[in-house]
Amino acid sequence: MTSSEPAYMIAYTLHMSLIVTGTIAIDTVHTPSGKVEGVLGGSCAYFAAAASFHAPVRVVAAVGGDWPDEHRKILHSFNNISLQGLEHRPNSKTFAWGGRYFEDMNRRETLFTDLGVLDEDPPPVPTAYRDSEFVFLGNTHPHVQAQLLGHFPNRKLAVADTMDLWINVAHDELLALLKQLDGLALNYDEAEQLTGTRNPMTAARKILEMGPTFVTVKKGEHGAILVHRDGVAVVPAYPAELEDVVDPTGAGDAFAGGMMGYLASANKTDFASIQTALAWGTVTASFALESFGLDRLTEISRADIDQRMKAFRAAARVG
Amino acid sequence: MTSSEPAYMIAYTLHMSLIVTGTIAIDTVHTPSGKVEGVLGGSCAYFAAAASFHAPVRVVAAVGGDWPDEHRKILHSFNNISLQGLEHRPNSKTFAWGGRYFEDMNRRETLFTDLGVLDEDPPPVPTAYRDSEFVFLGNTHPHVQAQLLGHFPNRKLAVADTMDLWINVAHDELLALLKQLDGLALNYDEAEQLTGTRNPMTAARKILEMGPTFVTVKKGEHGAILVHRDGVAVVPAYPAELEDVVDPTGAGDAFAGGMMGYLASANKTDFASIQTALAWGTVTASFALESFGLDRLTEISRADIDQRMKAFRAAARVG
Repeated sequence: MTSSEPAYMIAYTLHMSLIVTGTIAIDTVHTPSGKVEGVLGGSCAYFAAAASFHAPVRVVAAVGGDWPDEHRKILHSFNNISLQGLEHRPNSKTFAWGGRYFEDMNRRETLFTDLGVLDEDPPPVPTAYRDSEFVFLGNTHPHVQAQLLGHFPNRKLAVADTMDLWINVAHDELLALLKQLDGLALNYDEAEQLTGTRNPMTAARKILEMGPTFVTVKKGEHGAILVHRDGVAVVPAYPAELEDVVDPTGAGDAFAGGMMGYLASANKTDFASIQTALAWGTVTASFALESFGLDRLTEISRADIDQRMKAFRAAARVG
Repeated sequence: MTSSEPAYMIAYTLHMSLIVTGTIAIDTVHTPSGKVEGVLGGSCAYFAAAASFHAPVRVVAAVGGDWPDEHRKILHSFNNISLQGLEHRPNSKTFAWGGRYFEDMNRRETLFTDLGVLDEDPPPVPTAYRDSEFVFLGNTHPHVQAQLLGHFPNRKLAVADTMDLWINVAHDELLALLKQLDGLALNYDEAEQLTGTRNPMTAARKILEMGPTFVTVKKGEHGAILVHRDGVAVVPAYPAELEDVVDPTGAGDAFAGGMMGYLASANKTDFASIQTALAWGTVTASFALESFGLDRLTEISRADIDQRMKAFRAAARVG
């Protein structure tokens, strides 16, 4: 690098490599705001879109022959997303999910799940991705998550999401995975399910004893809690009006994307930085709620996120 | 005042007069932590104990001939509580309440309610209290709250608590009261009940249209929201471990006491000060949870509150 190179180049090259593994889905969603069929969804889509406002992000996932070209175009419209690790399987079907949210949007029911490519081998990890340092393992079988993790020997921060299904049917594999993770992301009910403890602080402390350095407990409209070996942080949700909450699908993945994207951009893994990252995750995810699919995230710029972060800091000031 | 008077005297005399009207109760409480019978409770008790760490507080309530001397001693043990407005009615019964909390502590059922003095005339307001400037109307019939409010012509800030019962059976009186209030405190479900709107932000905005300048929506373990004509604030709850939450009874009143006590001590009524007051309310109330009745609040000092405020600021730092 020469002294004549502009400052933004330096900033760019300092971004540490961030990768997400998980699903690309074709979603059908009913909410009190309306209904959509066949929109782009899945943990990788929401995570990558959210992370891309903060740092370049690599995607490892598989799609089938039915994957709409329109969905690829949406992901391509985010400048910072690398799709080299997105495997196209012409003879398979893309993972499809249908769900319906109840009136209060905190609860939903699954209408259908077509596993498609998820019922096949996990996608290969491109050699060019092996140097990834910030790794997010989107929700899938913990055995698959552990396999994927093995592809990133240079990882500095590995965080995984999980769900009630794996806590039930793959408990031992999940416990084995936990020993290899820096962080686990899960929601309030899942934290209780994994530990038998309703209090999320106490539940998170029990999970730390299972291996990870930190746990984020996501509470949806009530924000999130971070329990880390070095401290505790609490963050409220961004205060959204009724008309702003169109579809909660993917909000947890967008939260993780904003959080990991910030950490990769700062190249930090310490408690204080993860606490700051919670706020970036909250603000980035608040946009994901404002439309079905990724629509709202395709409309905004980094300036919109910065502006909302300013408003969030003001609203959440304590003391 | 002479220049030889110490600084703390000046600070003390700047405290504006704070008053609370409401109930003194004899509580019977079952929680997952245990069971107590006949402990001191009621909105005035919790509010006044919490407020007293911040400012002198006056109490307007009535008790019956069965009121235990032990309960009076507990209130007297707080230096800043004036009981001149506590009316003793030898031939009446003190309000008694029994309740049982479920495993998750967010829900409870009422086991019994003996109205006692609450079924009689409201207590008289001592003439010496008429100059009160910061007024908190604890939960009771909104018609009684409006009557009490009339005794404080110099009020600078009047805030009332309410409950589902009055929203149902005294809707018109509640609407009339709202036009005279600066602030309304209510919980998440009550905000929905009053407005038909589940989203607490939107519900609070609808309540502002009914008259008050601000609304605080209390969410228990998920914190609180402040919607004010001049801005919005969100505050998480103090992150408590399972073993620290012994009894949630009175936490909302202790929250209000900490909040109003701070505002009276600062002699402020603007949005930014109310936002700061939310944090003091949160921290003060966090101690009330740690025991049945007022036990924990009788043990602590202002230094304990200040220390916890410091920890809360660190945990709730955003961005």
